[in-house]
Parts: sequence; structure tokens; C-alpha cells
Amino acid sequence: MGARVELTDLPLREDLRGRTPYGAPQLDVPYRLNTNENPYPPTEALVADVTAAVAEIAGELHRYPDRDAVALREDLAAYLAEDTGVTLTSENVWAANGSNEILQQILQAFGGPGRTALGFEPSYSMHPIIAAGTRTEWAPTPRRADFSLDVARAAEILAEHRPDVVFVTSPNNPTGQSIPLPDLRVLIEAAPAIVVVDEAYAEFSSQESAIRLLDEYGSKLIVSRTMSKAFAFAGGRLGYLAAAPAVVDALQLVRLPYHLSSLTQAAARASLRHAGETLGSVAKLAAERDRVVEALADMGFQVVPSDANFVLFGWFADAKAAWRKYVEHGVLIRDVGIAGHLRVTIGTPEENDAFLAASKEVSR
Amino acid sequence: MGARVELTDLPLREDLRGRTPYGAPQLDVPYRLNTNENPYPPTEALVADVTAAVAEIAGELHRYPDRDAVALREDLAAYLAEDTGVTLTSENVWAANGSNEILQQILQAFGGPGRTALGFEPSYSMHPIIAAGTRTEWAPTPRRADFSLDVARAAEILAEHRPDVVFVTSPNNPTGQSIPLPDLRVLIEAAPAIVVVDEAYAEFSSQESAIRLLDEYGSKLIVSRTMSKAFAFAGGRLGYLAAAPAVVDALQLVRLPYHLSSLTQAAARASLRHAGETLGSVAKLAAERDRVVEALADMGFQVVPSDANFVLFGWFADAKAAWRKYVEHGVLIRDVGIAGHLRVTIGTPEENDAFLAASKEVSR
Repeated sequence: MGARVELTDLPLREDLRGRTPYGAPQLDVPYRLNTNENPYPPTEALVADVTAAVAEIAGELHRYPDRDAVALREDLAAYLAEDTGVTLTSENVWAANGSNEILQQILQAFGGPGRTALGFEPSYSMHPIIAAGTRTEWAPTPRRADFSLDVARAAEILAEHRPDVVFVTSPNNPTGQSIPLPDLRVLIEAAPAIVVVDEAYAEFSSQESAIRLLDEYGSKLIVSRTMSKAFAFAGGRLGYLAAAPAVVDALQLVRLPYHLSSLTQAAARASLRHAGETLGSVAKLAAERDRVVEALADMGFQVVPSDANFVLFGWFADAKAAWRKYVEHGVLIRDVGIAGHLRVTIGTPEENDAFLAASKEVSR
Repeated sequence: MGARVELTDLPLREDLRGRTPYGAPQLDVPYRLNTNENPYPPTEALVADVTAAVAEIAGELHRYPDRDAVALREDLAAYLAEDTGVTLTSENVWAANGSNEILQQILQAFGGPGRTALGFEPSYSMHPIIAAGTRTEWAPTPRRADFSLDVARAAEILAEHRPDVVFVTSPNNPTGQSIPLPDLRVLIEAAPAIVVVDEAYAEFSSQESAIRLLDEYGSKLIVSRTMSKAFAFAGGRLGYLAAAPAVVDALQLVRLPYHLSSLTQAAARASLRHAGETLGSVAKLAAERDRVVEALADMGFQVVPSDANFVLFGWFADAKAAWRKYVEHGVLIRDVGIAGHLRVTIGTPEENDAFLAASKEVSR
């Protein structure tokens, strides 16, 4: 190829100039506790079932997939109904390549230029990035210093600023706290339009799902979920949502046709058939989380209460330096950009022991 | 669930109101010749290899995929190098869930509000839809009445209107003609910024690929491709592009992280290993295309010359009624919205015979 053209030479849109791609470092270290994956690999039975499901559809790979992924959406609705006790059908469910694509479709339909999305920060850092990608104005609203949400104040802000879309992350990533349903009600009632409750970590939470409020709030409420965390299916990329059927109709106006491959549809359905055995790890991980929280507190760390499969902790005088120290000990955790804090994903007992051993060595 | 909320009750963005989702009808009829798929199913060897590749990665599905899909991009670069004779590396290649996602990422990076994309219509109907989805102004520019491109006039229009992104589809869908490299040069030189050559049907074409111009035009030229057509991998959803490395860097600023699943990456790589046997069908399909064109002409149809795996033909006094007649004969073809015309995908000899037999019965 000819002379190297640099990124700065390109007619890139202005707001992308100087940016770097989103993403945690993918380093090859013994203990990877940085992206909130489930540390337990798929069982042999699940691997066999995913493989058999793919073998079954592979002979038809020359054909486009079911554009509406109806069978998968039926299975997701059945899982959510069992998980939450709320009756749902495929008409209430939509699926995409990871919950990021779900959130992007929501902002393509209900956000965009001239519209505003609001989130309570610190929270999932993809929310403002997806807002930027869809040219939706981002209105960050701070949480309390202890990362909890001042619900009364938040409701005032929603009533005052009237954002077109509100993101409520529960449990909140990267801080860990959930929002109880009575508090969610206050927020939904104060919001003028769409409220997206991002429940990526719902299976780890002790609180009830916002799905229980769907009937009450109609098309105002969207609950997004993912199979990347508790479901141990991060590599399969399957995000989904529950909402009123009209919301699903709206997203079909912006989704790219055939966005979900036959492979994804078949493998996700196989994975859902093993929900029971996969989600058996949730109680183990919650118990390990409580052990890690206690051990960190005993070492004198400040630990943020967590209802998820990760823990935010500090205080480090230099969080970046501390992060590097952990890597030197073979433990990859996450610097989420919160001053003085780092986030660790709960792993297997052995991984957590390695993390706790390293924690003793890392200076604050 | 409570009272049904309708789509019109939602705070949908204004330009989506009244729209219907994109997509050809997915009907269960004996002969499906409407979405330009390769009619030959994957070989047994390919099915076995895809299945083995998935079995190999399924035990790691709890982990996120390689975010940069480097191994897949290396394989795609090697395939393109062999196909076009141009030396390429993974740095020149980017991949996504179908070429629609590729085109969406291009417009997120180089289009958007306040910018314009131009295409020569009739052409691939997703171009204006993806422009709308990214809020890029769409500037449709007509082809000649015979659907060929008036290159000199097109160059004048590009110089005058100065669009930020130009789409050139070659072979053009749904009309079938390719643009020779000397004509492409004229267009690229007249364009002020990015030119995207959409080569979804390149393997069927007798013309050289625009990839041969990459070195000459640096970051101004992007060539998009898909594995959905000649590669017989429509169900796997794998689109890709070749461009200068800086373009690939730019797209990494707008791609959703982990957009390509481990399943997609593994299955696409397996499919690429069988490129030779899969693409063996291309010559058969080209020969069948020529047979269908001749037979249609013998019946008195007006047939647009095609360099792809489909044929646009007419003239029907009522194309919608003719389309329904074909369905009644068990043959699903495509009404692409061009007055008096329908588009048929070239299938197996048996499928083409069924289509030709139906054509004798359908009144014009």
C-alpha cells in the first residue's frame, strides 16, 4: 500500500476527533477479573447442546436468518416470565447483538439530534458513548458521593430537564447498588418520556426486576438485559429487552435487517435451555462477593456495597499505579475512571484468593 | 399486560412516523428467489468444519470475544488478496454483522447530521435507510432510463454537490450492471471525500474489483463486501470492507465493543477455509443467469443486462399483480419498487426452470 494516511487526515465527524476506541485492555494474564464475565465455563452438556444446535442449522447457512428471531424471542419471554413472575410473550421481547446494540436501537428510535438522554453517573460508560454515536445529547447527572442515588433529587431533575430518554442502571455498573421498585416508581413517574432500566446484572440482585412494573407503565418503561453476565454467554453476544409490544414495533423500524445470525439465534436458544445449571453459579458468586467485600474491608479498603458480580473499592492515592501493580501480580482488574477506585469482577474462589493476596501487596 | 399501546402513541422520532420495517416477505413457498442468496447449501465438509469450529470455542463462551477480530480479519485479507491480486493485511480489513452494519459504521464516522450521502438510484435500498438511521442527508441521483450510469454526468454532480459520502454499487443491486475501473476512477476523482464501492456481488462480476484502486486513492476509497451472496453465508451475517488502515482506525471509534460474537468469528473463518469449493458455484450461477436472461428475452421480456446473480426484468403493466401471480405458482421473487419491473435471483437449474415456467403463465 502507498504512503500511510493518518486518522487525522480523514474527513471524520468533528466530535470523534481525538477520541480513542472504547474497551478494556484484553491482556493475557492468569486472572482476568475486569469485564464482569461469569468465571464458570459452560458445562459439557451446554457445549454439546450449542454444538448440536449449530450443526442442525449449518446446512442452511446459505439462507438469511429469521429476520424477527421469533423462536428466540419466545424462549427469552419464557425465561423472563419464570424469572420475574410476569407473563410475557415474544411480542414483549426484542433481541440484538449484545445489549449495546439494544441501547443503540432505543436511542435511534427515541433519541437522536435535538433530543436528550440522561443518566446518573458514574454508571455504565457505554451509555454516553452510544448517545454520542446516535447524536443524542447526553445529560450526566451525579450520584451522591457514596455512589447511591438521591431519588427525590433525581425526580426533581427529571421533571425540570425533561429528557427524552432516562437510563437507570440497576444494579449500577460500576458501583454495584440496585434501585428498589418503590424508588424506580418515583423516577418513572417523574420522567416525561422513556425510561430504560439497564438490568445487565439483574440475576445477581436481591431486588425485584423492573419487569414487574411493565404492566403499570405501558410503553414508558423498557427493561434491557444481557446473556453476557450471569448467563455466561459473553462470547455469544446476546442482549435483549422487555417492553410493551409497541416499543418492539418501534425498534423494528431502526434495526438493521437480519441483524441476528442463525448461529446466534440457535446458540442462544441452546444456552437458554441450560439456564438452570448456568444460573446455579449465581448463588456461589454472590457468596464469594460477600467474602471478598469482607476481606477487603478487613484489609482497610473502603468497599462500595454491591448487589452484582463485581465490587468497587478504594481508596487509592494513585488508582492507575495500583491497577498496574495488580497486573504485575497476574491479576487484571478494571480502572473505571473513578478517582481513587478500582473495580474487581468476582471470580472463582481461586481467582478471588489470588486477587485478595495481590490486594495485600498493592499500596494505597 | 395492560391496555394495548399503539406505535403512534410513542415518542418516536418524527422521521420514523408512518414508516414500516425494511425487509422482503419471508414466505414459505417451494422456490425462494427473492433475496439473492446462493442456492447451493454448504457442503457436508463445510457443515462439519463450521460445527467443529464452534465446538472448539463453545467452552469459552463465558468470555467476551476478541474485540478486534484479528484472526478473522487476517483470513479475510488473505482471501481478498487471492481474489484481487492486491496485497492486504488485517489492518486493511474490518468486519461486522453483515455489510449493513459496515455501511452504518461508515456513515456514523463520516456522515451524520449536517452531512450528505449520495447514491445513484435505483440501487441498494438500504443505503438511504442507513443514511436516515444515522441522520445523514440522502441525495438520490438518477441513473439513465436503462439503469446504466452516465459517468460524465455523475462526475459533474459530485463536483457540484460535494457529498461527504458517495455510494457506488457494483454490480448494482437491483439492476445488475458493474462499473468498470476507468469509470470508477472518474467518479473517485470527482468526489470531494469518501467513496464507498459496495461490492456485495463482486464474485459474480466480470469486472475487476475496486480493491485494485485502494493504493492509488488512499483513504478516499472504501470497498465493502459480504459473505451473504457468493459465499453462501447469509445466515452467518458477515460483512467486511477493505480500505486504508486509517479508515479501519476511524471505524473502531464508532463500532460497538465486542460487536462480532465468538460464534461468528469462528464460523466465518471455517467458511473462508472452504472458499474454493463454495465459490465453485459462481461459474454455474453465471451460466444459469445467462440461460435465464436468454429465455426471458425469447419470451418477449425486457431484460436488464446483469453481472450479478439476479436479473431485473419487465415490462409488467402491474408489477405487484405479477409478483402475486409468481407466488401463486410457488415462486417468490422480488418487487423492488421499480415501475414495471421485478427482480429474480438466479437459483439452481430446477429453481430457474420453475421460474421460467411460471413466467410463461404470468401476464404482462
